[in-house]
Amino acid sequence: MGSIALDDVETPKAKVKGALGGSNTFISIAASYFTKPIYMVGVVGEDFPEEHLNLFKKYDIDLEGLQIIPGGKTFRWGGVYLENFIDRDTTFTDLNVFENFNPIIPESKRESKIVLLGNIDPVLQLNVLEQINNPDLVICDTMNLWINIRNNELKEVIKKIDVLIINDSEAKMLANENNVIRAAKMVMDMGPKYLIIKKGEHGAMLFGEDKIFSAPAYPIEELHDPTGAGDTFAGGFAGYLLKSGDISFANMKKAVVYGSTMASFSVEQFSTGGIENLTNEKIEKRYKTFKELSEF
Amino acid sequence: MGSIALDDVETPKAKVKGALGGSNTFISIAASYFTKPIYMVGVVGEDFPEEHLNLFKKYDIDLEGLQIIPGGKTFRWGGVYLENFIDRDTTFTDLNVFENFNPIIPESKRESKIVLLGNIDPVLQLNVLEQINNPDLVICDTMNLWINIRNNELKEVIKKIDVLIINDSEAKMLANENNVIRAAKMVMDMGPKYLIIKKGEHGAMLFGEDKIFSAPAYPIEELHDPTGAGDTFAGGFAGYLLKSGDISFANMKKAVVYGSTMASFSVEQFSTGGIENLTNEKIEKRYKTFKELSEF
Repeated sequence: MGSIALDDVETPKAKVKGALGGSNTFISIAASYFTKPIYMVGVVGEDFPEEHLNLFKKYDIDLEGLQIIPGGKTFRWGGVYLENFIDRDTTFTDLNVFENFNPIIPESKRESKIVLLGNIDPVLQLNVLEQINNPDLVICDTMNLWINIRNNELKEVIKKIDVLIINDSEAKMLANENNVIRAAKMVMDMGPKYLIIKKGEHGAMLFGEDKIFSAPAYPIEELHDPTGAGDTFAGGFAGYLLKSGDISFANMKKAVVYGSTMASFSVEQFSTGGIENLTNEKIEKRYKTFKELSEF
Repeated sequence: MGSIALDDVETPKAKVKGALGGSNTFISIAASYFTKPIYMVGVVGEDFPEEHLNLFKKYDIDLEGLQIIPGGKTFRWGGVYLENFIDRDTTFTDLNVFENFNPIIPESKRESKIVLLGNIDPVLQLNVLEQINNPDLVICDTMNLWINIRNNELKEVIKKIDVLIINDSEAKMLANENNVIRAAKMVMDMGPKYLIIKKGEHGAMLFGEDKIFSAPAYPIEELHDPTGAGDTFAGGFAGYLLKSGDISFANMKKAVVYGSTMASFSVEQFSTGGIENLTNEKIEKRYKTFKELSEF
């Protein structure tokens, strides 16, 4: 579950208007390469283009949990990336149908083994979590906004999940600590069994069971659109775990690399362009590149 | 070869005055754990404490190429590290005996197989390089200062060496390019066969033969003094290469990890404290940690 959005994105190289976006979108498409169907839980307005729904269906994303609000308007977000392609200014956020969203997990989906709480208001994440019966693994993504304005609610969520995915600046913010390793330990003390810290061009780290794994980043010369890279990472991570049916630390390391693999495709094009029409062969080939990058 | 200095270092946690420092010092001690003797080429003043000379001797560092200038004063540097322990302000630089330094490689040492040009004025690096007969490998370290004030001379050096070691901000500065992967390719076009980019808490990358290797960083919770970490890295890198007698890309990857291993010890204490009294066992144990960190 997570947001489904229409994004206006501007980078130093180009801009698009009303592009398909939202954490749920990237998560679901990325995960669909590993396991099917994906159960999407979210909300859009009546204005949500048919072609996007068809795209979801193309990737075998089950839309029973997707509410389409008659007369409602889809969530819209606008952002401008700065020269470094990392920092961005949010130009507007129109919550629209998200303002009164009450997520409902269809009865048939309450036994889901892996639940991915995509980046969205922690209040909604809690709400969804309460509707699932004994999942094997709950993964949660979040962002600086919720650390700032929903700190208590976010900490409630963090207590109840297994894997928290955040980036390095968010980890430092959440722990109020500048050293990323110390920050990681402090966040772990808040409850999650595992913690993934995404570091963009510096890779990602996995913490858990008193172990640390450090994954390299794919060397990218031409970044096109970082929007959704983190969500895509989470989708690939969760999808691989479900496919392999193994939630050990050793296998989570592989899942982190599959997440990084998917994210590396994501940034190569605008919107979902980078993760559309991939093949297992392409994914495996890039996964191997990560092995070659880090083996010694 | 490189500088030998007496440093006044201040970090957010402590300060020391007149501590043993300089690129040559860290390089030579670090390398001595892998191969002996190390031939040191440098200069100090008559004021250079006997105890430091004894320390060099303790690590079987051959001092035939070390000039001790009668009545001269040793090079002194002062720096204050900011809260993040990475950025630093240089408070003073007294070149002293380095002002008129004319490095002379003793006749018996001109056949050295591996030459490490430590961070120092590129004019001196060139001078030393001309005195060596057909080395197997020339490694060069430098810093932002020389990129700024000796750009042409530095580029002359870079043309003639095999391995250039710089950090990420220096690579970007040298190439005038913000994307580190593109910057790496541009620096490679300047001449070196291999390029190592140090990224501090984000590890290090090795470029060469159209391949890339990405080494993780050792997770450090308590940084004490980053001074000399880069030099220590270079010393460990070169020392391991000489010891193993293998300068292939595959072996350079291991050398990068040994360099990172030595650097991780270096930052744990002030001055050379972190790399004194190490054992092969300690070094191998930490090297293994790097393997565990990155294996998947």
